[in-house]
Amino acid sequence: MNTGAPDARRYYALPSPFAMKRGGRLLGAQVAYETWGRLTAARDNAVLILTGLSPSAHAASNAEDPTPGWWEGMLGPGKAIDTDRWFVICANSLGSDKGSTCPASIDPATGEPYRLGFPELALEDVANAAFELVHHGLGIERLACLVGCSMGGMGALAYMVLHPGSVRAHVSVDTAPQAQPFAIAIRSLQREAIRLDPQWNGGDYDIHDGHGTRYPEMGMSIARKLGVITYRSAMEWNGRFARIRLDPEKREGEPFGFEFQVESYLQGHAQRFVRSFDPNCYLYLSRASDWFDIGEYGGGDIMQGLKRIQIERALVIGVSTDILFPLEQQEQIATGLSAAGAHVDFVALDSPQGHDAFLVDIPNYSRAIGGFLAGL
Amino acid sequence: MNTGAPDARRYYALPSPFAMKRGGRLLGAQVAYETWGRLTAARDNAVLILTGLSPSAHAASNAEDPTPGWWEGMLGPGKAIDTDRWFVICANSLGSDKGSTCPASIDPATGEPYRLGFPELALEDVANAAFELVHHGLGIERLACLVGCSMGGMGALAYMVLHPGSVRAHVSVDTAPQAQPFAIAIRSLQREAIRLDPQWNGGDYDIHDGHGTRYPEMGMSIARKLGVITYRSAMEWNGRFARIRLDPEKREGEPFGFEFQVESYLQGHAQRFVRSFDPNCYLYLSRASDWFDIGEYGGGDIMQGLKRIQIERALVIGVSTDILFPLEQQEQIATGLSAAGAHVDFVALDSPQGHDAFLVDIPNYSRAIGGFLAGL
Repeated sequence: MNTGAPDARRYYALPSPFAMKRGGRLLGAQVAYETWGRLTAARDNAVLILTGLSPSAHAASNAEDPTPGWWEGMLGPGKAIDTDRWFVICANSLGSDKGSTCPASIDPATGEPYRLGFPELALEDVANAAFELVHHGLGIERLACLVGCSMGGMGALAYMVLHPGSVRAHVSVDTAPQAQPFAIAIRSLQREAIRLDPQWNGGDYDIHDGHGTRYPEMGMSIARKLGVITYRSAMEWNGRFARIRLDPEKREGEPFGFEFQVESYLQGHAQRFVRSFDPNCYLYLSRASDWFDIGEYGGGDIMQGLKRIQIERALVIGVSTDILFPLEQQEQIATGLSAAGAHVDFVALDSPQGHDAFLVDIPNYSRAIGGFLAGL
Repeated sequence: MNTGAPDARRYYALPSPFAMKRGGRLLGAQVAYETWGRLTAARDNAVLILTGLSPSAHAASNAEDPTPGWWEGMLGPGKAIDTDRWFVICANSLGSDKGSTCPASIDPATGEPYRLGFPELALEDVANAAFELVHHGLGIERLACLVGCSMGGMGALAYMVLHPGSVRAHVSVDTAPQAQPFAIAIRSLQREAIRLDPQWNGGDYDIHDGHGTRYPEMGMSIARKLGVITYRSAMEWNGRFARIRLDPEKREGEPFGFEFQVESYLQGHAQRFVRSFDPNCYLYLSRASDWFDIGEYGGGDIMQGLKRIQIERALVIGVSTDILFPLEQQEQIATGLSAAGAHVDFVALDSPQGHDAFLVDIPNYSRAIGGFLAGL
């Protein structure tokens, strides 16, 4: 879909059929990606970024798309992920509707969108699709560094365990070696809010719709607000919103309408998300996050699973205010990769912004990630 | 409504009209309550319990109602709140549908349920109604102790600041001196899930309905699940549920249906709550919690507000795993009451159960509360 907006995406056609972990296969599937910097002749300076659930491949501005990306402060010439030195690739997750094949894509077998006919999606599939792009698409034998943020951090663990020798160094950002029950509960409730919305209609709503057509706006709004609540932290909000009221003219007129600034903040987040993300894609990626467990590769044991990952160096970073991916889970990753033989730096930050700190506390994340990459 | 089930409730007719903090008044209103033990001739052994948002006045079994109460382990002969010594009163909150006048009650002016015609409810109104019961209904000049749990702890602060000299000692359990933005965000989202449910219908659903009639089941279910998620803790669930799957025959057949035990646990909680609590009452009490701020009585300053509370002794208790009423808020209460001249014991527990620890970790709460009461 060419809307005339700047677009730096490239597309890699996955091998067809592309077999999925839990069964089923995709025909004619693709992965969208963007790149920054130049690959050396030795092809030894590639950094791949795997994203969280909702971001696109547009991690930062570039010549073809000067709009700011979702990690604009981290990525660019002279920045922590220095595009003067590194050839950086950001892959849109398989199953996401930002250019990669997903439940909103046309199923070539029917000519109609897959919807719930899309095969069950695991983060291993997201990882395998990104690996195909890097290995066969871009001809890169070995990544200098694999960076995974949030859901992308789990995908990065899958990438490394499934493709030994494909990664030299790893940066693990605000993520987990497996989904724990608190995170599963939150994500399950987000999915349920969408599923219970009559406009979801078993996945059969209007895809790529404008306003006014069938779309589970209520469920997506509740899901997004619950997401934002768990992505941030109580500490940050005490300082930021306290008990500040909205100006009376900004309040909703309806009973029990919004009155506090924090309610308006959540509403703003929801309004920017709803109708900009496909609900079925959200359900598939959310469930894939619940399913992920590196312990599967270690006979049920996280440490044994991590021990199968052979890399040279790793930076594992997290924040004490993250309630969705608590710091103990970053410690597990650091301990496991270290036991596997990697030289591991573990950085525990006290950023007040919770899970989203990696998107907000650019100074501290830049210092840690920039320092690590400079030392490679 | 006499259903033939055991019922130990008594009812106190509030002065009519009963003026509400934010305007409006109730005619012919009542407060439901239960009692345990015997009041001494000097009327100096009364302990009043103010509850959280959803419990009834049935805190423990008694002769007329032998079914276990919501604080059964804490209250009874020889227990921490020893009914051999204390005359214990538990008041159902004004605005709750467990016997007190509430939005589901008949408005004498119209002969129809109040619904959203119920005046705006503040926790100060809940406190004033309980004070009327104790002072004029039961003829008790001064409580030996006022116990407030969760929302009831905020109501207890209101009770003491509004009625100087009415309380000797205070037990503050898992509560806060004001609603902070994280808690407001959670409660706002719970209310929104109900408000967005088409079956809520602006508050005009079928009250006291059976199954199949108009009731916002989806909204109430989402609200309850979000409540349970924030009432417990990630730490507890790691040990309790980990990543245990449901037996295949217990899974839902539908797409994205429940698969993990933690999802089934939440569903069980929701099923026990939905249709047993009136949605409009839930909205009123939830908003009242957001509105509460002891700082209102101290020119906007929490400490100055608490300083106006004149009592002899206090026990302030909370848990480090509580994300809804974090331990720092209990510390504020302890500091403020101490600055006001009370002798204050502050107990910070590490119970893994989160906010609900006071309902679950009976051994530790018994030790603290029993020890405090024994010393009075």
